[in-house]
Amino acid sequence: MTDSHIVASFDENLNDLRKKIVQMGNLVEEQFKLATEALVEKDKTLAEQVRKNDKAIDQLELEIERFAVEVIALRAPVADDLREVISSIKISSALERMGDYAKNMAKRLTVLSKIDHLPGSTTILSQMVKITRTMITDVLDAYVKRDTNLAIEVWNRDQEVDALYDSLFRELLTYMMEKPQYITSATHLLFIAKNIERAGDQTTNIAEIVYYITEGELLELKRPKKDDTSFADLGVSKEENK
Amino acid sequence: MTDSHIVASFDENLNDLRKKIVQMGNLVEEQFKLATEALVEKDKTLAEQVRKNDKAIDQLELEIERFAVEVIALRAPVADDLREVISSIKISSALERMGDYAKNMAKRLTVLSKIDHLPGSTTILSQMVKITRTMITDVLDAYVKRDTNLAIEVWNRDQEVDALYDSLFRELLTYMMEKPQYITSATHLLFIAKNIERAGDQTTNIAEIVYYITEGELLELKRPKKDDTSFADLGVSKEENK
Repeated sequence: MTDSHIVASFDENLNDLRKKIVQMGNLVEEQFKLATEALVEKDKTLAEQVRKNDKAIDQLELEIERFAVEVIALRAPVADDLREVISSIKISSALERMGDYAKNMAKRLTVLSKIDHLPGSTTILSQMVKITRTMITDVLDAYVKRDTNLAIEVWNRDQEVDALYDSLFRELLTYMMEKPQYITSATHLLFIAKNIERAGDQTTNIAEIVYYITEGELLELKRPKKDDTSFADLGVSKEENK
Repeated sequence: MTDSHIVASFDENLNDLRKKIVQMGNLVEEQFKLATEALVEKDKTLAEQVRKNDKAIDQLELEIERFAVEVIALRAPVADDLREVISSIKISSALERMGDYAKNMAKRLTVLSKIDHLPGSTTILSQMVKITRTMITDVLDAYVKRDTNLAIEVWNRDQEVDALYDSLFRELLTYMMEKPQYITSATHLLFIAKNIERAGDQTTNIAEIVYYITEGELLELKRPKKDDTSFADLGVSKEENK
């Protein structure tokens, strides 16, 4: 199949690469949707499905890398074209990691459903996932359309995910202090939330790559440092440590 | 500076790329050493230093990628040579993320030292870091010498890091249940441990890349699934949830 790609023109090669990236991104977005559904509904069968689906994402990363290497070897692209082909390897690598985060969410459900006690924090989690999913869809759109404004907008939107993560972090810590019997499940929820927060970060990485291949320079924006309030020590613990 | 590289032969280009990768890897290894020292000694100045050092690692990733792209554009390498140049981009990207994990450890120290209460778990943490640092050194060695046996050995060694992580996870959860006032600091320690565990994973990724560029095929080994026992629900919590 790949051979027939190579016979095509370089523009067609680029188009095929872009299509594969979008296909991969859509799968990742779907995985977050399903993993969250599994979590909220405590649906173990669905969680198992999410774990299995991840293989297709891993496979696409391999395909994209191999195809990109073939295109470079046979076309010897330079300048912008080369930058774009290299970027497809980097974007697919970011998407692959995001896929792993979704799979990891699904894996933790196995424990959470066994414990059978969930602090009521899935609302914030669902909200985090909702925003992250729009970020994934929009960054793919920005990639296909070379829309740097949209890329910047996605990049900024990550602050909302970070803010929600910080709220949830504080909420879960307070929860654990009040109800030590939920420490295990709250800890797993913390890790799940951290995975979503990291997926948001990966999306901003893709937004930066889109900006770079479109504008030819690095995206240098200022914004509040990520993941800082999650280093919270919680007023309450200061009191308790007196 | 990069221009003078390009005038050199392709072999010299490859050598320069390898040198930069090793330089970057050594910095990352040093960062884990310093971050752990800062944590164990509660040394905030050192933690601040670790945060600052990370910039040099980020800078090296950019340099490696730019140089690799230039080499591809000007030399139009194919087959093994192309694979090696592309791999340098992937390895530097893995090292950059590992650098972030070390920086993140240092950032959390700011909170931990404020809280002024550390569960006595830094022994296991230090042990995890010690193994991870040998993995980094050895995988760089395997990369330079094209030593696939060493790459496989590093890849397997990650199981020790995972096993220590699982012990620590259980220990910290038990600790939180017994002493709720330490929940905040124990949670930050959990995230620190997770960062080290992820650094170990990244090192196995590099080992896989080394194997791939040397043998021309994917490393397909069987081993117990990573990060599975860390999904532990702890016998104790089952009891408590009755």
